[in-house]
Amino acid sequence: MLFSEIAKYLSSEIVGDDLEVNSMNELELASSSQLTFAVHKKYASQLSSSKSKAFLIVESLIESIPENTSYIICDDVSLSMAYATKIFAPKPIEPQLDPAEIGNDSYVDSMAKVENGAVIGSNVTIMAGAYVGTKVVIKDNTTIHPNVTIYRDCLIGSDCIIHSGTVIGADGFGFSHTKDGEHVKIYQNGNVIIEDDVEIGANCAIDRAVFNSTVVGKGTKLDNFIHIAHNCDIGEYCIFVAQTGVGGSTKLGRNCVVSGQCAFTDHLDIAPFSTFTARSGITKSIKESGGVYSGYPLMDHREWRRLQIKIANLSK
Amino acid sequence: MLFSEIAKYLSSEIVGDDLEVNSMNELELASSSQLTFAVHKKYASQLSSSKSKAFLIVESLIESIPENTSYIICDDVSLSMAYATKIFAPKPIEPQLDPAEIGNDSYVDSMAKVENGAVIGSNVTIMAGAYVGTKVVIKDNTTIHPNVTIYRDCLIGSDCIIHSGTVIGADGFGFSHTKDGEHVKIYQNGNVIIEDDVEIGANCAIDRAVFNSTVVGKGTKLDNFIHIAHNCDIGEYCIFVAQTGVGGSTKLGRNCVVSGQCAFTDHLDIAPFSTFTARSGITKSIKESGGVYSGYPLMDHREWRRLQIKIANLSK
Amino acid sequence: MLFSEIAKYLSSEIVGDDLEVNSMNELELASSSQLTFAVHKKYASQLSSSKSKAFLIVESLIESIPENTSYIICDDVSLSMAYATKIFAPKPIEPQLDPAEIGNDSYVDSMAKVENGAVIGSNVTIMAGAYVGTKVVIKDNTTIHPNVTIYRDCLIGSDCIIHSGTVIGADGFGFSHTKDGEHVKIYQNGNVIIEDDVEIGANCAIDRAVFNSTVVGKGTKLDNFIHIAHNCDIGEYCIFVAQTGVGGSTKLGRNCVVSGQCAFTDHLDIAPFSTFTARSGITKSIKESGGVYSGYPLMDHREWRRLQIKIANLSK
Repeated sequence: MLFSEIAKYLSSEIVGDDLEVNSMNELELASSSQLTFAVHKKYASQLSSSKSKAFLIVESLIESIPENTSYIICDDVSLSMAYATKIFAPKPIEPQLDPAEIGNDSYVDSMAKVENGAVIGSNVTIMAGAYVGTKVVIKDNTTIHPNVTIYRDCLIGSDCIIHSGTVIGADGFGFSHTKDGEHVKIYQNGNVIIEDDVEIGANCAIDRAVFNSTVVGKGTKLDNFIHIAHNCDIGEYCIFVAQTGVGGSTKLGRNCVVSGQCAFTDHLDIAPFSTFTARSGITKSIKESGGVYSGYPLMDHREWRRLQIKIANLSK
Repeated sequence: MLFSEIAKYLSSEIVGDDLEVNSMNELELASSSQLTFAVHKKYASQLSSSKSKAFLIVESLIESIPENTSYIICDDVSLSMAYATKIFAPKPIEPQLDPAEIGNDSYVDSMAKVENGAVIGSNVTIMAGAYVGTKVVIKDNTTIHPNVTIYRDCLIGSDCIIHSGTVIGADGFGFSHTKDGEHVKIYQNGNVIIEDDVEIGANCAIDRAVFNSTVVGKGTKLDNFIHIAHNCDIGEYCIFVAQTGVGGSTKLGRNCVVSGQCAFTDHLDIAPFSTFTARSGITKSIKESGGVYSGYPLMDHREWRRLQIKIANLSK
Repeated sequence: MLFSEIAKYLSSEIVGDDLEVNSMNELELASSSQLTFAVHKKYASQLSSSKSKAFLIVESLIESIPENTSYIICDDVSLSMAYATKIFAPKPIEPQLDPAEIGNDSYVDSMAKVENGAVIGSNVTIMAGAYVGTKVVIKDNTTIHPNVTIYRDCLIGSDCIIHSGTVIGADGFGFSHTKDGEHVKIYQNGNVIIEDDVEIGANCAIDRAVFNSTVVGKGTKLDNFIHIAHNCDIGEYCIFVAQTGVGGSTKLGRNCVVSGQCAFTDHLDIAPFSTFTARSGITKSIKESGGVYSGYPLMDHREWRRLQIKIANLSK
């Protein structure tokens, strides 16, 4: 799509030459064919080094724009970005694609739906009521239990087990906001990648990325009711006990153990081999690996135990 | 149905003339053709001013009954009320109704189920595995993702997006209790109304009202795993982050922001523009708009931050 | 299956005579035809009194093995046990079984899936999108709402109501761990038993037992988003409010009342008529019936109220 067409959609105009852009991405990751955006002056240096050729920016960033690129000056970049994501949102289904490829020895129940353009490996089981969206790839030996939903474009590794009611690839929760307090959807044009040997319990929800991918690493096991927000990157061989939630873009290293009803806020970076006891509320990144943590606010587990005794003594 | 027939079903008798009643409602909202009930003497004044003509009451309320009405004296009004709700419970499906009306340019997957009596607007997408119950109305441009369930009689506005696994209109959680500790179902004969431009994440549950409607206001956005109990009234343009629950009959004003893993008890009234940080536990109504709150028990957010420092100091 | 074949699968050898074993069970419950296992020296006395004839054991337990039995010495009994569970795992479906039996006056929607070998009672309603697995039994007058999933071998009593999105019988969350930090699935070969007159809200998950049964007792009522882990035994006439989780093998007595967002750890034994206010975190068994509890760590409700006042005073 031409950048000038996007400008027209945004009731705006481009500065610089017109060019073709085929998708959107964040500033640091955008390629030369991707539209990107900078909402605040503090992104000046990232803007300068971006590979993108097409930008939505605030006026104060004009001087930081790389040479030989084009841009649109926006009153509210967040809003313009949200509107622009709609342009690149794929349709829910694409009936014109070829019927799904199904590998040898795979079983697809007649009451499961596999959309056109999907690719199913060998020895895969897809049970009744399961939904496998457009262009989804499922690798060998994986079992999709009844009433699982896998949205379009997601990738499921080999030897995975996905239990009923789980939803993979629903839209991440992202909105820009108007001055009147209305919420404008940021279309979530990324996907989810579930690596090999992952088991996901019943009624989980792993949201698709706004751009790029939400990832669940190899060998990780999720209990029931796990919420993984958009753009998370969950390491290999992690364990999540039931009813835990992870905020957007949070990254966990390998072999983290997360007990039940924990919560991580967004944009954290958690060292590998970290352990969190039940109901931990994690609001800061953790740099040192191998720690054991508890509480909300979070603290060292031993400190938390001492603190609980102190608290209990208050009422005496 | 005749009031005398209801009395017979309850193994009881009416005092006053027989009359036709067509449904049930609570004391303040009941119309002249609705059966209602008063479980305790403290409802005397509401009883006196009720428009209903047919009551289930405790004996101590006889003197407060309006003239020219009829009543049944109950040993346990709560129990009798529960039994009576069963009489008015609609059947899960009504195959004798006309096939659903589907508007122009709407897509209903061959593996979606739309029950007879439903009305689907134009440019609506209903994907595989979705269930749209009897007499459900879905307005224009709305997308129902795979494996969504919408129970009978619910209304979904225009421009809504409902993600997979979400259940709209399941029975609210209401029971009366026998002296032996058994629980008697109060049939939930109301519905859910989702207004325009609402987005609901994956695996949410919004329960139908016992009487009347559970409402989610225009432009409100729900993340995954949101629980909205029966008879809630969620204002316009609210934001709910994942894994939050709202107890029955609680009312939120417009533009409230509710972070993850919060909980509201039942029958609260929350002022507009209120903000709740993660894991807030809200047990009291809030009258002043624009506040920011934290903690359980709930307090002003700044106070909560100060308190956390004090608590952390305890262990030193 | 011959014990020697299991040994071969585990790349090991049996000590003692070969014998036929038809399933697995834990030490105390195993019958003479069931394989069992003892992971640690502390199980010596249970091992001595076991009825099983076939054991996976650590070397230090050789002396405690009953006479006329056979065993395999394992470097890591937990791992060997996990591998062995796979041998006994039933297939997801068994198409060779007879078509399901459907009782009189029952309604099975043409878009519901009932696998072969299931037995459905009379006056049962199974709505569109529901999944009823191999050999599932559903007794009279029960309603299964749309998009419910019931895994193979589970039993649902009479007069039950199961709301949409609920998953009964997904695998419990059980893994053994290699020295390299990989997780090896313990196949969950038990089932779930839902007794009569149980109502289960939307989007709940009740996991199947690893061996034997997870049980939800007669007349118990679950709100939405309830998580019941494998091998729990929930007593009769309990009440669970939304978003509560119960850890594996925990047992509740009758008429317990559990408010919203509570959590129980695993292997607890909770006295009947116990009440837990919202967000209680229960980590210890409760012996005395009739108590009211709050908080995490858990305490007597009145003490918790006093403590909250003391805590609030800290910031003054």
